[in-house]
Amino acid sequence: MRGTLLYGPRDVRFEEREDPKIIEPTDAIIRIVATCVCGSDLWPYRGLEPFSQPQPMGHEYVGVVEDVGSEVKNIKAGDFVVGSFATSDNTCEICRAGYQSRCVHGEFVSQTIGTQAELARIPLADGTLVATPGRPDENLIPSLLAASDVLGTGWFGAVAADVGPGKTVVVIGDGAVGLLAVLASKQLGAERIIAMSRHPKRQELAREFGATEIVTERGDAGVEKIKELTDGLGAHSVIEAVGTQEAMLQAIRSTRPGGSVGYVGVSHDVKLDGDELFFSEIHLHGGPAPVRRFLPDLIDRIWKRQINPGKVFDMQLPLAQVAEAYRAMDERRAIKALLWP
Amino acid sequence: MRGTLLYGPRDVRFEEREDPKIIEPTDAIIRIVATCVCGSDLWPYRGLEPFSQPQPMGHEYVGVVEDVGSEVKNIKAGDFVVGSFATSDNTCEICRAGYQSRCVHGEFVSQTIGTQAELARIPLADGTLVATPGRPDENLIPSLLAASDVLGTGWFGAVAADVGPGKTVVVIGDGAVGLLAVLASKQLGAERIIAMSRHPKRQELAREFGATEIVTERGDAGVEKIKELTDGLGAHSVIEAVGTQEAMLQAIRSTRPGGSVGYVGVSHDVKLDGDELFFSEIHLHGGPAPVRRFLPDLIDRIWKRQINPGKVFDMQLPLAQVAEAYRAMDERRAIKALLWP
Repeated sequence: MRGTLLYGPRDVRFEEREDPKIIEPTDAIIRIVATCVCGSDLWPYRGLEPFSQPQPMGHEYVGVVEDVGSEVKNIKAGDFVVGSFATSDNTCEICRAGYQSRCVHGEFVSQTIGTQAELARIPLADGTLVATPGRPDENLIPSLLAASDVLGTGWFGAVAADVGPGKTVVVIGDGAVGLLAVLASKQLGAERIIAMSRHPKRQELAREFGATEIVTERGDAGVEKIKELTDGLGAHSVIEAVGTQEAMLQAIRSTRPGGSVGYVGVSHDVKLDGDELFFSEIHLHGGPAPVRRFLPDLIDRIWKRQINPGKVFDMQLPLAQVAEAYRAMDERRAIKALLWP
Repeated sequence: MRGTLLYGPRDVRFEEREDPKIIEPTDAIIRIVATCVCGSDLWPYRGLEPFSQPQPMGHEYVGVVEDVGSEVKNIKAGDFVVGSFATSDNTCEICRAGYQSRCVHGEFVSQTIGTQAELARIPLADGTLVATPGRPDENLIPSLLAASDVLGTGWFGAVAADVGPGKTVVVIGDGAVGLLAVLASKQLGAERIIAMSRHPKRQELAREFGATEIVTERGDAGVEKIKELTDGLGAHSVIEAVGTQEAMLQAIRSTRPGGSVGYVGVSHDVKLDGDELFFSEIHLHGGPAPVRRFLPDLIDRIWKRQINPGKVFDMQLPLAQVAEAYRAMDERRAIKALLWP
């Protein structure tokens, strides 16, 4: 098969790799139907995060099951499946509490497998994969692919930020996760949704997903603007979908005492001052999203066409052109690039 | 009247001060019946926190109302009252959400007033003070005084750490707040309560308050021990009642993914690494406890003698000997010193 490898910063290659095989009896092999490039892939791509060279890339996927190991019971060959970037048995105590991204037997797909490829081995298939009710219409596939990570992550951000009816929500980050956090907030009943963005196309999509206000200021000026819009108190719920020091401080400072920050941007060089955090009196929760917790519900909403998260894909390319997909996202020419094997 | 002033590190004086007077129509003047020294008073006492010199000291109090301003409606002269270290109107949006320690019109009693004195002016009396059902028996006074801060703070720590039935709770810190977080966890229905302490007298009180296990290890060894006791997962709920870097890291690392840290130790020189926090996947909440939220319930439990938090006072002195109370707590000869004016 062919797959994507990162050889060094900005050196993405699509080349022949060995076909994956069943290793554990709980594995499945899936033929990838659609995959994509994630904002978090850009950290190693830009040389801002260490990685083994060459590194198999990709952790978002929908596909059709080709083969399963002898112990797989819920998933069978021919199923159309959606999975998360974190594998999970979905039976351990941590999974049962809804934190499948920290399953005691789980691993991150991105570190060893790489789904920007024609085939992928998915460990713990029964707990990791969710089969759709049937073969989806072609035009549902982008949305199902979004559920695999960016929708699930934006949704977790909103849940972690305690979004709900009557709440004023701020979303920091206008990438795919931020935009889908707007969509999630709308679905979860937020009263006001303020998207922080200075990018006209992203502002437009934010509004389409449910943003009621757009704020273009950043950093301290962004905080000031949020205070102005909330009687000086700050928002009830703030979703941080960037991962930088500036974005985290902006999130914490935009939240009212007793309010909640849900942070899902993978943290890079962030240092939080205990004193500021203590007196901010906020709730802080986040981390790698337990997408698996939300998948059945998200697939159901997509299947019923209640939501259309696939709109975040504003570029579609053959998988063989994966290097161009990275370039387009790196240069912010594309919000998110979908790849067809 | 006479009151306590801190002139410099370890220089506590009890001396003549001007009688407090009604300044705002929402003020009350109370005659202090009992007050005490707080663990947080030891930070400036030890010279580890800046303060204006001389600084009026004390923020825990029960007393009898002497006089009220023209706009005070709920509280009247003669009432026996319990108040919090933070004044609150109890009507603003932040108060109504349960965060009275961050009331938009509130202030910290410790910064300007100082209740280690014979009299104190309490601003926003209607929202800050809670009257007891009548004049309490003498032996209830230590418990009511505890409700003013250390019980309310320990209780908030337990609530912030999401303590409840079926949960395994760890309490870091064996001062009065930590010990009362044990009591709160018991009242809130925790299944297991692990107190971290190497001090025999405090261990004994922790057990009396409901601790089911005692762990004497600290830092990484303490984390290791908690993992051992929880199938390698960590506790569901961890209450941090110290405020140091070591204690915060111990708390975060002792918590399972999806679990909660409630931190109520006033943060000093704590820096949290965003990356570690992100992958810990915990809930983090804390800050200056909104004691006022809990006061009616706590007073009720004390009045009915369901709880006896006053046991944390293992030293009682006349207020005039306040300097000795500071020394005893500084040297850990006393858990907490009650002062009678």
